[in-house]
Amino acid sequence: MATDSVKLLIVRASPYAMRAILEAKGLKYELIEENLSAKSQLLLESNPVYKKIPVLLHGGKAIPESLFIVLYVDEAWPERAAFFPKDPYARAMTHFWGDFIDKKIFQLAVSTMKTKKGDPKKEAGVSELYENFLTLESGFTQLDAKPFFNGAGIGYADICLAPLAAWLRVFVELAGIRVPTAEEAPKLHKFLSAIREHPGSKVAFPDPDELLSYVILHLKKTMAA
Amino acid sequence: MATDSVKLLIVRASPYAMRAILEAKGLKYELIEENLSAKSQLLLESNPVYKKIPVLLHGGKAIPESLFIVLYVDEAWPERAAFFPKDPYARAMTHFWGDFIDKKIFQLAVSTMKTKKGDPKKEAGVSELYENFLTLESGFTQLDAKPFFNGAGIGYADICLAPLAAWLRVFVELAGIRVPTAEEAPKLHKFLSAIREHPGSKVAFPDPDELLSYVILHLKKTMAA
Repeated sequence: MATDSVKLLIVRASPYAMRAILEAKGLKYELIEENLSAKSQLLLESNPVYKKIPVLLHGGKAIPESLFIVLYVDEAWPERAAFFPKDPYARAMTHFWGDFIDKKIFQLAVSTMKTKKGDPKKEAGVSELYENFLTLESGFTQLDAKPFFNGAGIGYADICLAPLAAWLRVFVELAGIRVPTAEEAPKLHKFLSAIREHPGSKVAFPDPDELLSYVILHLKKTMAA
Repeated sequence: MATDSVKLLIVRASPYAMRAILEAKGLKYELIEENLSAKSQLLLESNPVYKKIPVLLHGGKAIPESLFIVLYVDEAWPERAAFFPKDPYARAMTHFWGDFIDKKIFQLAVSTMKTKKGDPKKEAGVSELYENFLTLESGFTQLDAKPFFNGAGIGYADICLAPLAAWLRVFVELAGIRVPTAEEAPKLHKFLSAIREHPGSKVAFPDPDELLSYVILHLKKTMAA
């Protein structure tokens, strides 16, 4: 399938991992920067339901929502590195852990970050996240990660977790999250190191200082100082 | 693949649609009723992360979470009716609409149902749901539903939406939701009629009166009278 017509509507700093997906498949693509305070006609028409980035444009078709973009990219270029194992059970559990990462790591970290200091929900969120990182360690074991969930190359659950390598500093600084040590969660730490060294991530991830400034700027209205 | 070892951990009234999935594949299965106030060791061991029903047990493997059970059942018995189209774009959009149904129809309807009368969030939820039903109509069009998203047989997005046929009365009575008329949303109404006539649904769906009583009993602590 021709790869020269792949375009990705994004905003700066987010969702940077999307680029890593395309890099992982070795695709050529064009990034189109959106301004969320003045959304383009292209964005509004290509994602009429949510009107949000990211949207992948390919061969006249528009695929919204990051996780569905991953599924599409995986299946539209099946001759390239697969994002899922072949066994139905391993596939289902890859979805299971990807969903856990989405809800129980990222959504919880973001909502904890947005909770004001002093609100008991903030400390509860920090505690739950710590436990969830330990639970995630059992996911690495279940899917026999080495070091990625998908083996030596990144796959679906890895793509779900990859942005943590860039966002961890933001979550620590702005949400006060506590991450298990390398002794408590060795597989998580190996994963994060490997993601930081992955060629796709190197292209895709923003500079941590820049990301922190960006998030502070965008959250300052809703966050406690 | 042998089908005689398929078991499903459930509770009565929910998640009834799970049975329809197994019926749609023509599988034999055993239902195991769980008591959520005294969960079995089997449930705790087979879903250690969430400790929730449903869990599918097959050949010594445990698959938790309804949507991942659907994916597993579809792929473990590929020789039987497929739950997804073959085209990568149609597959991605089937996921997209399944997710929309999960979040923007069911989760919103349940949270609106639990919101107390007089809370402005209740009326806002009712209005948003009405709009979401109209948006869903565009999903039926996009995936060329006839009458199901998956064509003549039920598939992934259909399974996501199917429980509405049983729950609609509960949502109308307890959440006060408004559903577009058959003129405003003809495809939704055709879908609901077809689901009610589907052999799998007929086996799987609880009696509407029984379901209403069940929900009232379980929500009475958190709901306004």
